[in-house]
Amino acid sequence: MIEQNQLPFEFRIAGCKTYQETCQAIKTMMVRGAGAIGAAAGFAMAQAALSLLPDELSEARKAIESTRPTARNLFYAVGRVYAAALESPGKAVAEALAVAEEDAVASRRIGEYGNNLIPSKAGIGTHCNAGWLAFVDYGTAISPIYKAFTEGKDVFVYVDETRPRGQGARLTAWELHQAGVPHAIISDNAMAWYMSRGMIDLVIVGADRIATNGDTANKIGTLEKAIAARHFNIPFYVAAPTSTLDRDCPDGSHIVIEERDPDEVLYQDGMTASGKKETVRVCSPGSGALNPAFDITPASLITAFITEKGIFEPFRL
Amino acid sequence: MIEQNQLPFEFRIAGCKTYQETCQAIKTMMVRGAGAIGAAAGFAMAQAALSLLPDELSEARKAIESTRPTARNLFYAVGRVYAAALESPGKAVAEALAVAEEDAVASRRIGEYGNNLIPSKAGIGTHCNAGWLAFVDYGTAISPIYKAFTEGKDVFVYVDETRPRGQGARLTAWELHQAGVPHAIISDNAMAWYMSRGMIDLVIVGADRIATNGDTANKIGTLEKAIAARHFNIPFYVAAPTSTLDRDCPDGSHIVIEERDPDEVLYQDGMTASGKKETVRVCSPGSGALNPAFDITPASLITAFITEKGIFEPFRL
Repeated sequence: MIEQNQLPFEFRIAGCKTYQETCQAIKTMMVRGAGAIGAAAGFAMAQAALSLLPDELSEARKAIESTRPTARNLFYAVGRVYAAALESPGKAVAEALAVAEEDAVASRRIGEYGNNLIPSKAGIGTHCNAGWLAFVDYGTAISPIYKAFTEGKDVFVYVDETRPRGQGARLTAWELHQAGVPHAIISDNAMAWYMSRGMIDLVIVGADRIATNGDTANKIGTLEKAIAARHFNIPFYVAAPTSTLDRDCPDGSHIVIEERDPDEVLYQDGMTASGKKETVRVCSPGSGALNPAFDITPASLITAFITEKGIFEPFRL
Repeated sequence: MIEQNQLPFEFRIAGCKTYQETCQAIKTMMVRGAGAIGAAAGFAMAQAALSLLPDELSEARKAIESTRPTARNLFYAVGRVYAAALESPGKAVAEALAVAEEDAVASRRIGEYGNNLIPSKAGIGTHCNAGWLAFVDYGTAISPIYKAFTEGKDVFVYVDETRPRGQGARLTAWELHQAGVPHAIISDNAMAWYMSRGMIDLVIVGADRIATNGDTANKIGTLEKAIAARHFNIPFYVAAPTSTLDRDCPDGSHIVIEERDPDEVLYQDGMTASGKKETVRVCSPGSGALNPAFDITPASLITAFITEKGIFEPFRL
């Protein structure tokens, strides 16, 4: 897998030889993004099937599921591969491959459906990274943008930084630069301002878990962007494969929000002028921080979901 | 003056011997914050009066006014001291001292009035730094919080980071830590989430320029917080001395928004583990950034203005 926490300064591929190593990669966000976490977790479950006795699999499943509590695709993938593993290790591997392949197919279809929502000239806001890094391929929120761009539409993407971990500034910007899609990084604080100036025609974000009523968990800040979009009557789309839908979850109040290490807020990783990677404290030394990794955007603020099966308004999901 | 861009890692006092040096200090944000900029600009005008011929003063005034285009207090202070300088250098110095003294008095009164709006137990959101660093003393947005805290109220302040320059994380947090006021730093993305959880009872921010209809220019991100506060029916207060009111400006569309260097978004200053100050690139190397320093919050989103003359709803200003 791509070592995403080395990006954008270094492109490195890492192998995980055991399911424990894969768990660690998910936990430390070496691999992150809803679909990519799901695929990695599926492979972790298959690795467990290849190395453990059948009655040890349930323990391994718990370990894999405890890596990131909010991402629905993780539970979806592990559930499928676990069921296959109870039959045979070979079936587990086949199922993990199928989960990954389906993710790529779903992402491509999301791009096709989502492209229909993008006018021929469009300023597009996005938050965090739901591009091909976050999935097996194409991505969700960014997939329609890639499709629109390759079709020759005049798109400009407002990529917000997405503090604390900067997935917008580091990953989405990196992806868009690789693909030649016109874009600019803005601070998270600037999105509403560009909306107020008429520069943003639509917002597309991804999702980590969708409740059956349409309430959506996604990267912290999604809620704030959705509220701002509604204020300015700008369409706010959530792009996600249907595997992100949690049928056991009636609404957002049932979604566990992961609290991550406050150091992610207090410190920043980056590259010095001399090309050295360095971590610096960016906050006042005496103060602590709170670091919720996700928030819940209520269905009422979401214009529509872009899925591999088509575009749905919340109440129709 | 305090070298604010050395904070929170170092507390250093700098002197500016000429009005040009003072201009440079304003431009580079060594001194920042509405009232502090105003006071510094007033002293710069007095320095010019002490060193220049009367017919050179108009040129100096232009140089001082061109340092930061959005801050109303700068123009207010320079206008007053310039008028005095036309009479004599001594009067210019006296006027600059008066501007600074009035700023401190206004800030203390803002604290007293604003304190009446803070319940005995309150979660308070704030954005950027409008504390005593930003003014000659006490500050505006933070002044009521200091007053409430010293009166024994149970306050907790959600200090947002305020990217790109981190005035919340670096300056407000530093101030509150010095004063022992309970607080936590949050990423700019997290404010709406804490609002949605019922943790924030009111928001207080400062202002850089207020139009006569109440539209308010303040640090980029203020608009987004105001929209979120309105969405959750949370009072949103702007604390500012009446010198921030621009009587020549009918509404926000007439306020010039300063665009600052994109590098402020692309890079971050901080302190390494070994105690060395270091600047690191935090964004993908191929991408550019947009960096508006302020935004305009329409009067309709502002619950009330807290001034040294009392509390006013927008339409009464």
